[in-house]
Amino acid sequence: MNVIIINGPNLNLLGKRNPDVYGDTSFEDFFKILKKSFHAINLDYYQSNVEGELINKIQEVGFVYDYIIFNGGGYTHTSIALADCIESIETPVLEVHVSNIYARDEFRRKSLFAPFCVGSIVGCGLDGYRLAINHIIRQ
Amino acid sequence: MNVIIINGPNLNLLGKRNPDVYGDTSFEDFFKILKKSFHAINLDYYQSNVEGELINKIQEVGFVYDYIIFNGGGYTHTSIALADCIESIETPVLEVHVSNIYARDEFRRKSLFAPFCVGSIVGCGLDGYRLAINHIIRQ
Amino acid sequence: MNVIIINGPNLNLLGKRNPDVYGDTSFEDFFKILKKSFHAINLDYYQSNVEGELINKIQEVGFVYDYIIFNGGGYTHTSIALADCIESIETPVLEVHVSNIYARDEFRRKSLFAPFCVGSIVGCGLDGYRLAINHIIRQ
Amino acid sequence: MNVIIINGPNLNLLGKRNPDVYGDTSFEDFFKILKKSFHAINLDYYQSNVEGELINKIQEVGFVYDYIIFNGGGYTHTSIALADCIESIETPVLEVHVSNIYARDEFRRKSLFAPFCVGSIVGCGLDGYRLAINHIIRQ
Amino acid sequence: MNVIIINGPNLNLLGKRNPDVYGDTSFEDFFKILKKSFHAINLDYYQSNVEGELINKIQEVGFVYDYIIFNGGGYTHTSIALADCIESIETPVLEVHVSNIYARDEFRRKSLFAPFCVGSIVGCGLDGYRLAINHIIRQ
Amino acid sequence: MNVIIINGPNLNLLGKRNPDVYGDTSFEDFFKILKKSFHAINLDYYQSNVEGELINKIQEVGFVYDYIIFNGGGYTHTSIALADCIESIETPVLEVHVSNIYARDEFRRKSLFAPFCVGSIVGCGLDGYRLAINHIIRQ
Amino acid sequence: MNVIIINGPNLNLLGKRNPDVYGDTSFEDFFKILKKSFHAINLDYYQSNVEGELINKIQEVGFVYDYIIFNGGGYTHTSIALADCIESIETPVLEVHVSNIYARDEFRRKSLFAPFCVGSIVGCGLDGYRLAINHIIRQ
Amino acid sequence: MNVIIINGPNLNLLGKRNPDVYGDTSFEDFFKILKKSFHAINLDYYQSNVEGELINKIQEVGFVYDYIIFNGGGYTHTSIALADCIESIETPVLEVHVSNIYARDEFRRKSLFAPFCVGSIVGCGLDGYRLAINHIIRQ
Amino acid sequence: MNVIIINGPNLNLLGKRNPDVYGDTSFEDFFKILKKSFHAINLDYYQSNVEGELINKIQEVGFVYDYIIFNGGGYTHTSIALADCIESIETPVLEVHVSNIYARDEFRRKSLFAPFCVGSIVGCGLDGYRLAINHIIRQ
Amino acid sequence: MNVIIINGPNLNLLGKRNPDVYGDTSFEDFFKILKKSFHAINLDYYQSNVEGELINKIQEVGFVYDYIIFNGGGYTHTSIALADCIESIETPVLEVHVSNIYARDEFRRKSLFAPFCVGSIVGCGLDGYRLAINHIIRQ
Amino acid sequence: MNVIIINGPNLNLLGKRNPDVYGDTSFEDFFKILKKSFHAINLDYYQSNVEGELINKIQEVGFVYDYIIFNGGGYTHTSIALADCIESIETPVLEVHVSNIYARDEFRRKSLFAPFCVGSIVGCGLDGYRLAINHIIRQ
Amino acid sequence: MNVIIINGPNLNLLGKRNPDVYGDTSFEDFFKILKKSFHAINLDYYQSNVEGELINKIQEVGFVYDYIIFNGGGYTHTSIALADCIESIETPVLEVHVSNIYARDEFRRKSLFAPFCVGSIVGCGLDGYRLAINHIIRQ
Repeated sequence: MNVIIINGPNLNLLGKRNPDVYGDTSFEDFFKILKKSFHAINLDYYQSNVEGELINKIQEVGFVYDYIIFNGGGYTHTSIALADCIESIETPVLEVHVSNIYARDEFRRKSLFAPFCVGSIVGCGLDGYRLAINHIIRQ
Repeated sequence: MNVIIINGPNLNLLGKRNPDVYGDTSFEDFFKILKKSFHAINLDYYQSNVEGELINKIQEVGFVYDYIIFNGGGYTHTSIALADCIESIETPVLEVHVSNIYARDEFRRKSLFAPFCVGSIVGCGLDGYRLAINHIIRQ
Repeated sequence: MNVIIINGPNLNLLGKRNPDVYGDTSFEDFFKILKKSFHAINLDYYQSNVEGELINKIQEVGFVYDYIIFNGGGYTHTSIALADCIESIETPVLEVHVSNIYARDEFRRKSLFAPFCVGSIVGCGLDGYRLAINHIIRQ
Repeated sequence: MNVIIINGPNLNLLGKRNPDVYGDTSFEDFFKILKKSFHAINLDYYQSNVEGELINKIQEVGFVYDYIIFNGGGYTHTSIALADCIESIETPVLEVHVSNIYARDEFRRKSLFAPFCVGSIVGCGLDGYRLAINHIIRQ
Repeated sequence: MNVIIINGPNLNLLGKRNPDVYGDTSFEDFFKILKKSFHAINLDYYQSNVEGELINKIQEVGFVYDYIIFNGGGYTHTSIALADCIESIETPVLEVHVSNIYARDEFRRKSLFAPFCVGSIVGCGLDGYRLAINHIIRQ
Repeated sequence: MNVIIINGPNLNLLGKRNPDVYGDTSFEDFFKILKKSFHAINLDYYQSNVEGELINKIQEVGFVYDYIIFNGGGYTHTSIALADCIESIETPVLEVHVSNIYARDEFRRKSLFAPFCVGSIVGCGLDGYRLAINHIIRQ
Repeated sequence: MNVIIINGPNLNLLGKRNPDVYGDTSFEDFFKILKKSFHAINLDYYQSNVEGELINKIQEVGFVYDYIIFNGGGYTHTSIALADCIESIETPVLEVHVSNIYARDEFRRKSLFAPFCVGSIVGCGLDGYRLAINHIIRQ
Repeated sequence: MNVIIINGPNLNLLGKRNPDVYGDTSFEDFFKILKKSFHAINLDYYQSNVEGELINKIQEVGFVYDYIIFNGGGYTHTSIALADCIESIETPVLEVHVSNIYARDEFRRKSLFAPFCVGSIVGCGLDGYRLAINHIIRQ
Repeated sequence: MNVIIINGPNLNLLGKRNPDVYGDTSFEDFFKILKKSFHAINLDYYQSNVEGELINKIQEVGFVYDYIIFNGGGYTHTSIALADCIESIETPVLEVHVSNIYARDEFRRKSLFAPFCVGSIVGCGLDGYRLAINHIIRQ
Repeated sequence: MNVIIINGPNLNLLGKRNPDVYGDTSFEDFFKILKKSFHAINLDYYQSNVEGELINKIQEVGFVYDYIIFNGGGYTHTSIALADCIESIETPVLEVHVSNIYARDEFRRKSLFAPFCVGSIVGCGLDGYRLAINHIIRQ
Repeated sequence: MNVIIINGPNLNLLGKRNPDVYGDTSFEDFFKILKKSFHAINLDYYQSNVEGELINKIQEVGFVYDYIIFNGGGYTHTSIALADCIESIETPVLEVHVSNIYARDEFRRKSLFAPFCVGSIVGCGLDGYRLAINHIIRQ
Repeated sequence: MNVIIINGPNLNLLGKRNPDVYGDTSFEDFFKILKKSFHAINLDYYQSNVEGELINKIQEVGFVYDYIIFNGGGYTHTSIALADCIESIETPVLEVHVSNIYARDEFRRKSLFAPFCVGSIVGCGLDGYRLAINHIIRQ
């Protein structure tokens, strides 16, 4: 089973940016632990701050992987191009957000990706990624 | 550890209503399995179609339980009174929605409860309840 | 043929509240006449001011009756939970409103139930209930 | 007693346009049956696709007929001029719509005529016209 | 000097419709007096309830008359086609409204014609037409 | 003189919920003091979290009491059914809110009850109830 | 007969500000001509840039003059206080605007005063003031 | 204890303007009675129709008085400058409105001052001022 | 192959109205050239300023012609009745607009017909009609 | 004559994504045919999923090519930066969309590029590109 | 070179009001330093809380001074009359705001003056005035 | 002291694009002069049309430089991802815009970056960058 976690803009700052909101673990460290916990599956990771590179990656994996776990960061609320991309591919996508976006600014309460995703896990911190995989391997 | 699942209006119809959207398992049957999987904790369940009864129950458990898993159903998008109630209590609340509410009608894309909840798990079917407990016991 | 008339909040005040708008006959008296006119069918009546009790009743009859005639009163414009309920059941529902809601305040011009009802009869006074049954028995 | 049914734009296509939504009976055929059922009253019929001709006709009958049954079609949602006309005349007007306009597109959920009509019967198919007359002769 | 008064829908009911708002003089009678008062100019009059006939007339006179006095009635707030027409012709247009449209319903507070008219005289009753001519002959 | 104070959802948590915003006195204790201060009138008290039960109570007292002091809590901003109820009864109603609702979230700045109430006293804490009675006994 | 023309902010710049839009005659010069033309009535003039001074003046003349001709300038679209003032007095008010405000910026298309004025004359340049008096003396 | 009542635009017309809505007592007469009732405190009064003069006065008393009772009249809904002023001073402000502003026109339902005021008393007529002082002296 | 070009209001002024925006060729002259270029198909032309006559014509050809090329002019943005008509017929419709409507006024940026048309060609001047036929004959 | 077709995000999936909506030809294959049909002109092609790379390319060709045919994909509705870019260059741009964007989701009905483009051809499938070139070579 | 700084409402409280947001220097003290730094130009200062007095002053200097530096305070977001005034004069105006208004409340994010000003310097504290002069003397 | 100027999309066209609005100096030439004027500080420059590359750069310098001067161009109004980035770093950011964005199109009047920037200087042309540095070195 091939699963990839794709993180969008500024998520490379995790552990550095507002540690009281997002925690102080870097995603790379967290990913190592995650890989160990789920050694039975093939788990990959990709991050980019560039909208079009995220589209490139999703197009690339979107016809060959079994599942995409996607945290679109700030593009979640503005990118019709990314939404189109998710709609176009065949691999199912599950949204994860570290903080509770629906509890923050008004403009963060709308995900353009939601209509094309299976579901979403928000506000559970980094543990949300673990839950996502936990859910996927039960499908 | 005391955890309660509280379900709002029409969730007593699970297994009966639109089985293609919500699955065909009744919540009662699913709850039995859930209790067995998590026998180490005390897991309770409550359902009501009446907004005020949900408030009563949340007020009752909201100062004594360790965690509430709440699926407010249709009240999620309209009930300021329930939102007030969640804000008023001390027990943390985690939202669960069986279907991907953010992928459905425009008026379902806003949860009045979100700002007062820890997070939410949506669109993972009944498995969302399991993930919620799975997350809680890791806290 | 089993038909039930379900009236929502404040309709128990008919005959008492604004008689110039709603007439001065109480619904109970009117219902007796109605039952006599349509003695060939089984005609029931239920009224509650509690949103959740209306949901309970609609769930109860919504898989066994042939037709529901529903006047949701003030909940018509606010209750997603009741709309969900109407959508979930199998029995067809026909909306009736005594006064012309579409001619009154802006916020009364939208029925959340309409998308899940067969149709609606508004502004024909209590006679609207008679027309509803008259229509149903022709189906 | 003089009653006239006035139909607006595209209603001359009834029986031809989307038969699954509007049925496959032409209005002319239906009208013949209707006239027979209510032979005790004088029942007339007029149809036009031209907004101004509908105004002309309503002005003409609006001070001499006892009742107008009006289905404004697409003008229902856009014509202030027709609404002014209905407000200006003395004959009471009852709105009929074949399909449940309040269950369709957002822009169809508002009738500019409603504030000046006695009431409206929507979503009961062609039977709505029969109900309208049935109601009128009871006044 | 050639001036034409063009009246839109329902203005043929003047003297008949809501006499307390619009007065009880018919426009024809008023026009006779007006012609007499301004015998030095050539004054014409046209009325139609049909939007397209108003366009036809305005196109016809709009390159040969010196001034058009236009009361668009209910089309004032909805007809982009009439607004286009006024924009397209060469003859200047002055708007007149018998009642104070800016003091009535919200949707009557916007004139689509205003951006293409010289100005407007509203709420001065039928006297507004006299003022309009009075203004024109001073240009 | 018969006066009743009716409190809506979550007001039974007064003294317990956000004491810095709402104070730390329970309403029951406060009510005892209030009764003593105004021993010359008959003062009653009712609280419920259920919208429909509040309607039931207001219908019950709304034709026999002299005055209702009503704090609708979270229903203030959402319940058309309660607003209808207040409009339907004969007893005048005075709104009280403990905190300054017009200074809080945007959605709390609108009271659906205001158009049917005599007036409102907001942001004066529990003292607002005392002022309300003080005002009533001067009428 | 006592008539006063009251001009609001920036109208003292007439003849100086955008002469191509508003003409190059100062209002004072124009007023002298106007007074001569209508020597049979007592015609006064007042101008201020201060909202509250306009209120003071309207309150002062609003119970003793026969007619007020008011050009509120920029306050026309923002001043509820001036609108209240016009509503409070007994003297009827006729609005005049030199340019066609309904043809300019969106925010200039709404007059807060219109609902309390008899009518308005807009876009006829300074001649609008003459028309206003011409209309008044015919009442 | 130094308390000042500051009244905004058109409140000097109290007793003169719409007596059925606002009563027929002038504020000056009412103020004399009020001063007598509360002879233990120093009670002052100021009224102006000029927005900037109200700001001047509030700045002047806003660092020396104990309490300001403010009825901003029409400026309540439009003046950010006054709202800034109330926010800037140290003396607490209590809003009073004679009529129930929240029951009137849509644009009157928002007070820009509310977020910076302790609370507000609306719709209790002139008695609202008495209640305000009654409340203040209990603090 | 039977194709008809139907032009709506004011398009009979082409060559006369704003020549710098719409060019100075009359549509009749242009149509002669077009017919010659596409002599292999049967090409017809119809123009009317009357909304209802356009509906009549579209109903007439809408079940017998192979293709309709429609420029609805000002009705494009307001006529639900015409949109209904296009939806009701069987012949496919292709929209053409001479100028770039999506680059002009805000209210011109929405075509009510688009959801029921195959596509649209805008801003290519009269050449847009040629492109439309060029496309059609390739189907 | 130098013409370039620039395609935005996800258009590299043509022939792969929703073939029932967009057809099953890849753009590369289609482009070869196109080049052959118009061998008299120099025709180039560029595609990128990255917004900024599209800006780079348009800046590069925008002062040297004769015409740009641009399909901005999902950026059409969100990218002010691309709109600025189109406005800044000298080469005229013609928009093409394969599907009828004006018939799809609400948020797809607005093109930020339209005000700076000559025109647009939408809903004609891949044939739209051919029509665009056909139009350009006639200029 | 004649330059004037004009400050609007509540800016006379600088140094007194929210010192953490606006600093604790009074404007008068700051102005003395400023005058010294720019002794080569004639620098004046005016402050008023009265909207109309600001208009009077701007009209007075607006045809004789070389530059106006204007901080409209709370009137920035509400005063069309002041905006008209700035548009009417000949002297260029540069806006200054001490705090970052675009980072504060939603209603502070729009300046009605901006369209008629050269530019604006916001959020640089009192130093913004110095920068403004620094910029002006370079023109 | 390390300061960097970061310019967003299309600002590399300065001197080339609309020279009447933005001037005809290229930014590179202007930057050389700037560096000379402020030789005491270390001044760097970066420009990209790619949103994600701007994020990369801001992340890179945002924990080591003393100040960032940022002109986000068209991304100013659309990029939540860039706003997140500015919020996440430690270096303070000052916004500069060459033209007066608040005087242009409606959608340009909102900066998503403003809430996370110290302040902004707009409409002062290229001189705005000089003012920005002038301000920074005074901190």
